[in-house]
Amino acid sequence: MNNGWPIRLQQMTVIPGDPYRNTETMLAAIAAASRDGVRLLVFPEMAIPGYLLADEWERPAFLRECTACGDAVRTAARDLTVIFGNVAVDPKRCNEDGRLRKYNALFVAQAGRFVIPDNGLEYPFLAKTLMPNYREFDDSRHFYDNCKLARETGRRLQDIIVPLDLDSHRVGALLCEDAWDEDYDIAPARMVAGKGIDFLVLINSSPFTFNKRNKRDRIFSRLARQLERPVLYVNSVGLQDNGKTVYTFDGASAVYSPAGDVLSGPASFEEDHLSLAWPPDSNDWKPLKPRVDTIADIDRALIYGIDNFMKRLGLQRVVIGVSGGIDSAVVAALHRRVLAPQDLLLLTMPSRYNSRRTLAATRQLAASLGCLFAETPIDQSVELTRSQIDGLQLRTADGRIHDRLLLNDNLLENVQARDRSARVLAAIAAAFGGVFTCNANKAEMTVGYTTLYGDLGGYLAPIGDLWKDDVYRLARFMNDAVFKNETIPEDCFRVTPSAELSAAQDVEQGLGDPLQYPYHDALFRSWVESWDRTTPEDILAWYLQGELERNIGFTGSVDELFATPRDFVADLERWWNAYQGIGVAKRIQAPPILAVTRRAFGFDHREAQLGPRYSRRYRELKISLNSGGA
Amino acid sequence: MNNGWPIRLQQMTVIPGDPYRNTETMLAAIAAASRDGVRLLVFPEMAIPGYLLADEWERPAFLRECTACGDAVRTAARDLTVIFGNVAVDPKRCNEDGRLRKYNALFVAQAGRFVIPDNGLEYPFLAKTLMPNYREFDDSRHFYDNCKLARETGRRLQDIIVPLDLDSHRVGALLCEDAWDEDYDIAPARMVAGKGIDFLVLINSSPFTFNKRNKRDRIFSRLARQLERPVLYVNSVGLQDNGKTVYTFDGASAVYSPAGDVLSGPASFEEDHLSLAWPPDSNDWKPLKPRVDTIADIDRALIYGIDNFMKRLGLQRVVIGVSGGIDSAVVAALHRRVLAPQDLLLLTMPSRYNSRRTLAATRQLAASLGCLFAETPIDQSVELTRSQIDGLQLRTADGRIHDRLLLNDNLLENVQARDRSARVLAAIAAAFGGVFTCNANKAEMTVGYTTLYGDLGGYLAPIGDLWKDDVYRLARFMNDAVFKNETIPEDCFRVTPSAELSAAQDVEQGLGDPLQYPYHDALFRSWVESWDRTTPEDILAWYLQGELERNIGFTGSVDELFATPRDFVADLERWWNAYQGIGVAKRIQAPPILAVTRRAFGFDHREAQLGPRYSRRYRELKISLNSGGA
Repeated sequence: MNNGWPIRLQQMTVIPGDPYRNTETMLAAIAAASRDGVRLLVFPEMAIPGYLLADEWERPAFLRECTACGDAVRTAARDLTVIFGNVAVDPKRCNEDGRLRKYNALFVAQAGRFVIPDNGLEYPFLAKTLMPNYREFDDSRHFYDNCKLARETGRRLQDIIVPLDLDSHRVGALLCEDAWDEDYDIAPARMVAGKGIDFLVLINSSPFTFNKRNKRDRIFSRLARQLERPVLYVNSVGLQDNGKTVYTFDGASAVYSPAGDVLSGPASFEEDHLSLAWPPDSNDWKPLKPRVDTIADIDRALIYGIDNFMKRLGLQRVVIGVSGGIDSAVVAALHRRVLAPQDLLLLTMPSRYNSRRTLAATRQLAASLGCLFAETPIDQSVELTRSQIDGLQLRTADGRIHDRLLLNDNLLENVQARDRSARVLAAIAAAFGGVFTCNANKAEMTVGYTTLYGDLGGYLAPIGDLWKDDVYRLARFMNDAVFKNETIPEDCFRVTPSAELSAAQDVEQGLGDPLQYPYHDALFRSWVESWDRTTPEDILAWYLQGELERNIGFTGSVDELFATPRDFVADLERWWNAYQGIGVAKRIQAPPILAVTRRAFGFDHREAQLGPRYSRRYRELKISLNSGGA
Repeated sequence: MNNGWPIRLQQMTVIPGDPYRNTETMLAAIAAASRDGVRLLVFPEMAIPGYLLADEWERPAFLRECTACGDAVRTAARDLTVIFGNVAVDPKRCNEDGRLRKYNALFVAQAGRFVIPDNGLEYPFLAKTLMPNYREFDDSRHFYDNCKLARETGRRLQDIIVPLDLDSHRVGALLCEDAWDEDYDIAPARMVAGKGIDFLVLINSSPFTFNKRNKRDRIFSRLARQLERPVLYVNSVGLQDNGKTVYTFDGASAVYSPAGDVLSGPASFEEDHLSLAWPPDSNDWKPLKPRVDTIADIDRALIYGIDNFMKRLGLQRVVIGVSGGIDSAVVAALHRRVLAPQDLLLLTMPSRYNSRRTLAATRQLAASLGCLFAETPIDQSVELTRSQIDGLQLRTADGRIHDRLLLNDNLLENVQARDRSARVLAAIAAAFGGVFTCNANKAEMTVGYTTLYGDLGGYLAPIGDLWKDDVYRLARFMNDAVFKNETIPEDCFRVTPSAELSAAQDVEQGLGDPLQYPYHDALFRSWVESWDRTTPEDILAWYLQGELERNIGFTGSVDELFATPRDFVADLERWWNAYQGIGVAKRIQAPPILAVTRRAFGFDHREAQLGPRYSRRYRELKISLNSGGA
């Protein structure tokens, strides 16, 4: 380090909803920084309360705690200047919902006091200006923003967003979305930089999403270039959730130079810090290279997420129902990496429909993972259920037999799935002192190709945000790069994906699920993940134009999958009906999903039970296709 | 009707996400109004798309349909002026999330054209100004508002909010929240009225909440008084949902006079219209009287909600697991009122722990409801599960027996609950061609006093937003006012609430659930429903001050329930742990809940898995209590 002004960006772990624990972390970091001669210590956005807290913000007792913790950090900031994020409460004003006035705020403490920004508001903090209200974010639900504050106080926005004078440096300080201003008509970073700053500090609470790191690099590097000032980016690590959707926070704190260089900080998902002296030596900078995420990054996020989600809930033991297929094998392999062998139990629950091949694969998997293994057959119980329900007498009020129920083979498939999860797995998990997993992948989640209270049950759906193709890639990655052997048996890759719930799903004959990967992965992705979400109208129009494959990113040819346009349409409607119909009903009762993509089911991808619909344009296209001679 | 200007407020049923069906409804209403000589016809907010659509707004194909439907309404508005709500799309601009620019908008059509308001924006509509972002509302997630529009276009807000000149009347026209401005620093109604209006039209999409009608009366009557102009309030009826939370829309359209009088419109939950001639004859007005909701209004909302929810999902048959207790009896009675006798099946699933008394009550209930009845015992299956799992060998990779599972009596309680729902009810519902219900009440939902994949399963939790005391009152109301006899057996009221899952829950001995009503109702209500939600810190402080009963609205005395302060605290922590711990996990996988209160679980009351926490202040209070000599 040179003799400049010592700055430290603290990539801390933030525990959501636990202000005292986060404050302990911060006080320890302040003490360490003080010992190390740091003069400016920067913590992430919402470092004290956490960020994704759902409606926890509505509890005044919680807000009082956050305020008290903020005061503790202020008091500890004696020998150095500390920037940190916290909720700021103004008890004299109210939010637009009538509750206490709250801001997503940036505080600066030095010499035991809060710095009062020179913007005439007399608040001991700077508030966030741009409010993300998309995906998993609900900022306007809870926080008042600078735009409203400007209007309310009769000020101009640009007079509120001011730099701070810290140790004779002029520092711009903003919060997260304030610098992701591409789609806003306001640019807080340019506003503050226009008043003259030495550099911009950006505090963040930004979850991991596949390839978001690369986007961050592009955006903040461009911002540094535009402002002609370095951007100091600090983000938290940890795990936060909105109930149905669970997010990992990857940190990836860094400093971006106007010249396109970077000072890289701690590794992703690691609690650590980045220290620099201001101004940095020119030879400390490294050229910024594109960091494109790979399956290894998804693997890292999943392991971090499973590990921390279990710790959060105080879970130590897991049972996994293994089928011999790739999904349950991957869930088992992931859990083995965060659990001791005796805390992981693989359970096979064979029926008459399970092949020797898949049963052998489950045993091989348990052996290679070195965990516990048990077997609980379900035929006897399923037969009991069949005998109790098939032919069951329904009686009228006067005792006459009105009807008898018929439990056909199709219904028996779901009986088996529920028997495995709700009868066997749930009881074994309880007796084992743990929980069981939901092994559904994102394609299955999309179209509800799962049984409610059956294989859709579980404490977490760890691969519920991974398309089937990603599941295969992850399995291959683990064997190649993590285990460095065939831990996940080769047969799990080779076997036809199948529920094995009837004689018609015989894997020995190559008979399996009706989903055709990777085409359905690509189709469903365009419905779920494209920013402007597609509908059958778009899909059919592209199909007619011969541009479907390109537009949905499917590398094969749909004409090889479907003999006629009529078959193509039947398949399209089958899965659209499932996605918009029973799929929504099932997702409402699905377990929490560990998010890795830019659109995860749950609180990110919000859904109402509107039912499947087809637009007039779709119907017209379909008519033109049929009359065109399919 | 006098010879004034004929106006009609159309309290139409809005089907969410189905613009063409809504447009058909509107075109029929326009034709009828035209025949009746109406000159101004007013439809509700978001009459074309529906309002609670979750993220449906992100599909450009859907937005194109809404726009086309708006054009169809415009074209039909030839002989009269039509005001209606729709989503407005500006393809040349984008929202702050980068998606298409959308407004929650009010359109005025006459002579086949849209009226362009005189505010310089050249938009053929007026946009909503105030954006509700609390409870179930997410307006800022999807819609750009007038405040942002003013800023973006460099205009003053008051120059954007303008009256309309219609048939030589000057009409103020606003959307819903625009007139609920109590907690905003902006008052759109006063802005527009300040420019001189004859009356204010307010189009709404406002769900039913217990006692909200009374609040609407107060607010709009006061608004009419403040503006010195009548307020014409039109609201839709129907059912809309956000996935986990299902809302009924009650309409209750009315006209409020500055003198405190009212022209009442169609009954709540009825599709109808209110016609008036402007200005109304003075003798048409009736004095506004407080309309305090009663259990009859909840009953109406539940029946309307169940009926419409089933129709929405295309459901026609329902199975209800009945226990002899009040909750399942009420759910059965509600469903009997919307279903034919042969489409409702009551199922009793006795075990060794069920008393003759409760079994007799289930038979009596089925007889009095005149529906189908069946019985499926569970002892044999539970015994099979016990024999399979108790003593199950867990083996290590080398085949050694590592451990044997123990399935104790406590775990067997949950085995029974899951056996009833996931094994029996789910299969019987499928064989019956229907669904089964979740009979949990709100107190049980709060603390997770239910079994996941057991009694928490079901297509809908129709009484999941009713406290236990409300369930009793509803049962009494139905017997007294609906059935006018003892349809719900008296024993269902008298029996001790009990899960009957063990010998320790013997109702014949008065042994039942650990919840003590109505105290726990009141305690949980303060945690869940108070606008500024309470925590154990508040509860304990009130307890110490002797003000707990008054503050939580409990009419009894806690000292009679708990022998010592230590007992009080143990109970408080037991249920807080459950509410904030396993309760959240269970609600994530709970069925949709039919909302009737001001705070329903799900999308209204958003939750993260933060775990139970106790503040420092709570711990201090607890120490003071213990040292004070408990």
